[in-house]
Amino acid sequence: MKVLVLGGDGFCGWPTALHLSARGWDVTVVDNLSRRNIDNELEVRSLTPIRTMGERIAAWKSISGRTIDFVNMTVGKEFDRLVALIRDLKPDSVVHFAEQRAAPYSMKSARHKLYTVDNNINATHHLLAAIVESGQDVHLAHLGTMGVYGYGTAGLRIPEGYLKVTVDTDNGPAEQEILFPPNPGSIYHMTKTQDALLFQFYARNDSLRITDLHQGIVWGTQTEETRQDERLINRFDYDGDYGTVLNRFLMQAAVGYPLTVHGTGGQTRAFIHIQDTVRCVELALNNPPRAGERVKILNQMTESHRVRDLATLIADVTGAEIAHVANPRQEADENELVVANDQFRDLGLKPITLKQGLMDEVTDIARRYADRVDPARIACVSSWNARRAEAVAAEAGTQPAPPRPEARPKPRLVRPA
Amino acid sequence: MKVLVLGGDGFCGWPTALHLSARGWDVTVVDNLSRRNIDNELEVRSLTPIRTMGERIAAWKSISGRTIDFVNMTVGKEFDRLVALIRDLKPDSVVHFAEQRAAPYSMKSARHKLYTVDNNINATHHLLAAIVESGQDVHLAHLGTMGVYGYGTAGLRIPEGYLKVTVDTDNGPAEQEILFPPNPGSIYHMTKTQDALLFQFYARNDSLRITDLHQGIVWGTQTEETRQDERLINRFDYDGDYGTVLNRFLMQAAVGYPLTVHGTGGQTRAFIHIQDTVRCVELALNNPPRAGERVKILNQMTESHRVRDLATLIADVTGAEIAHVANPRQEADENELVVANDQFRDLGLKPITLKQGLMDEVTDIARRYADRVDPARIACVSSWNARRAEAVAAEAGTQPAPPRPEARPKPRLVRPA
Repeated sequence: MKVLVLGGDGFCGWPTALHLSARGWDVTVVDNLSRRNIDNELEVRSLTPIRTMGERIAAWKSISGRTIDFVNMTVGKEFDRLVALIRDLKPDSVVHFAEQRAAPYSMKSARHKLYTVDNNINATHHLLAAIVESGQDVHLAHLGTMGVYGYGTAGLRIPEGYLKVTVDTDNGPAEQEILFPPNPGSIYHMTKTQDALLFQFYARNDSLRITDLHQGIVWGTQTEETRQDERLINRFDYDGDYGTVLNRFLMQAAVGYPLTVHGTGGQTRAFIHIQDTVRCVELALNNPPRAGERVKILNQMTESHRVRDLATLIADVTGAEIAHVANPRQEADENELVVANDQFRDLGLKPITLKQGLMDEVTDIARRYADRVDPARIACVSSWNARRAEAVAAEAGTQPAPPRPEARPKPRLVRPA
Repeated sequence: MKVLVLGGDGFCGWPTALHLSARGWDVTVVDNLSRRNIDNELEVRSLTPIRTMGERIAAWKSISGRTIDFVNMTVGKEFDRLVALIRDLKPDSVVHFAEQRAAPYSMKSARHKLYTVDNNINATHHLLAAIVESGQDVHLAHLGTMGVYGYGTAGLRIPEGYLKVTVDTDNGPAEQEILFPPNPGSIYHMTKTQDALLFQFYARNDSLRITDLHQGIVWGTQTEETRQDERLINRFDYDGDYGTVLNRFLMQAAVGYPLTVHGTGGQTRAFIHIQDTVRCVELALNNPPRAGERVKILNQMTESHRVRDLATLIADVTGAEIAHVANPRQEADENELVVANDQFRDLGLKPITLKQGLMDEVTDIARRYADRVDPARIACVSSWNARRAEAVAAEAGTQPAPPRPEARPKPRLVRPA
């Protein structure tokens, strides 16, 4: 079985490439290294010392004996190369991670908004058009986000992509199943709702086989494969743009920086460990939809938590302080979130829970590489609109800034349970 | 009152620019002349002899004494110029026609699909981001399409953008108003559903004031202004990609070509005369939403008809023959369509009906310029997918082609009523 992993150099892409290779798939990674280039732009680096693609692939070969191929290509710009690659390689599946994936980065400035829309929509569309053009029967699995649903759905259990509704017609009430009405919270999330329309169209018009994985916020760093050798280590983003909330808390605790909770911290979000991400992708590839079937949508998450509860949990374990800061995001202060994830459970997923995996991460990663943290990059500086920017600036001007750790912070002692 | 008309050289844009100028608006047209360039690509030309923008604007000045400014710019590529233009001009409104607007063209090949998505999404997004960046309070009126609703809605009266639905929640059934679930029939229509997500996001996040006009199929050619001088004449597309169904029938009748009905002709579509288009845009500009209000969506159509009924109507009046041909489009053979258009009626729109305006068009335009028709460009050659392409090709191979008019066809006599 052959698979193309688009965006296979990124936080989810690289461990997926390794996981599939370890399970016997012939893996070709396609990536333009944009994530590394954005690190350059933002003047940040992964907490973990990630290696070049060349070194990663060589290390994997020496450890597993297996080859991962790598093509440096911009999906969304180089259509003819993409078609030729699909025609030559004849992959059974393509996993599509090749999008700009940070909400704060997508809201950073007009230029970042334009880049995110242009990059993500053209990447997805080039891929769909290329599969049609190639004439190959390829299953496409796309990494989407729980964020397409929005978080304003009180009392409603979020289904897997499609929602049963009743509408009034001239013939009385009629039941219909519709794509869940999207309510994206950032330009990034919005591009995923635009992707969804592309998927619906190509599944209907061209009978493409498409799976859209609506993923929760990923936490953790390592998988069975990435921990086999330090040269295979996965990236860990802690900066205000790319760092995800739970990994940021873990890092902040490790370096003695207060846990930065936006607003009340009443936002409820869905989570999944990176190890479960790669398992879910494998399960999705092994259970594709049939040609002519509608787009298969799975909620790729394993548990939901309120942000302030996460902060309290980590503060209790590590002794970290909590700092409530102005929220740069335009979003509700408080929301509920109940999510269906029956399909992956039915396929046999045994989730790694937060309680089970939490301490490993603190010990293994956040503390081990704490001296690589640049504290100046921790704050979230991308505001959603002028009003939020003013609130953040006002707080910075009128309130004392949260206490800064030293330049080379030392881990704090774990408070006994 | 100042207005920017993006795409003001096109079929709807040019008469809109004239109409608003005639009503006292200071009009600046922005256009990159892409529609004329596509004529070059397709080796077709407008049935009517349209003039250059320079000649059009000079003619309007000499007739009305009013100035229309023109900026040759690609919206969606030249962000900084667009921001500077909005900052300098400080328009009250922007009318956004600057998109590739033909469904068959959007399905012509992979390259045309890619162009349509890239062009339309980036044009709309650049405009939204530029308004935010400019800091100006500008009302944006966008030309959308009835096609975003899809045509599979038996028994449901299509509302104006938003649909009341009932969903089951843990607390019992709950009523919600959602954006009408889109069901676009081509890549072109799909881009308009992606635009809609952009509008929803920017209205919510940045309190932009946005009106989305879901327009029916436009017919007719001339408006009060364009008929004042032949140098102001509007374009009339009859070719298989850009010609719309009713104008194509009128042209076919005028040159003695059979009326080409796709499949059974059971497709029901919404229609509007070009004169009503420009009136509706004016009404929309004069009735903008308030900042913070949701996107205002109006159905810009005045009547619905089944395609085969239109063909019969025109055949009865003109004596034209009807030819049923294989449908290159992936669509239902038959559909109902009942549409709400209360908002424009409440604003005082008095529609031009088909019966009332039909004969003027046949006489004034289609016959007058009949010797400009290239019969080789009448057939629809863009198929939606491989299956439809095969059906079209099979028909061409096994059935006699429809009778061809002479190279310089003469109008047929109108059959007495």
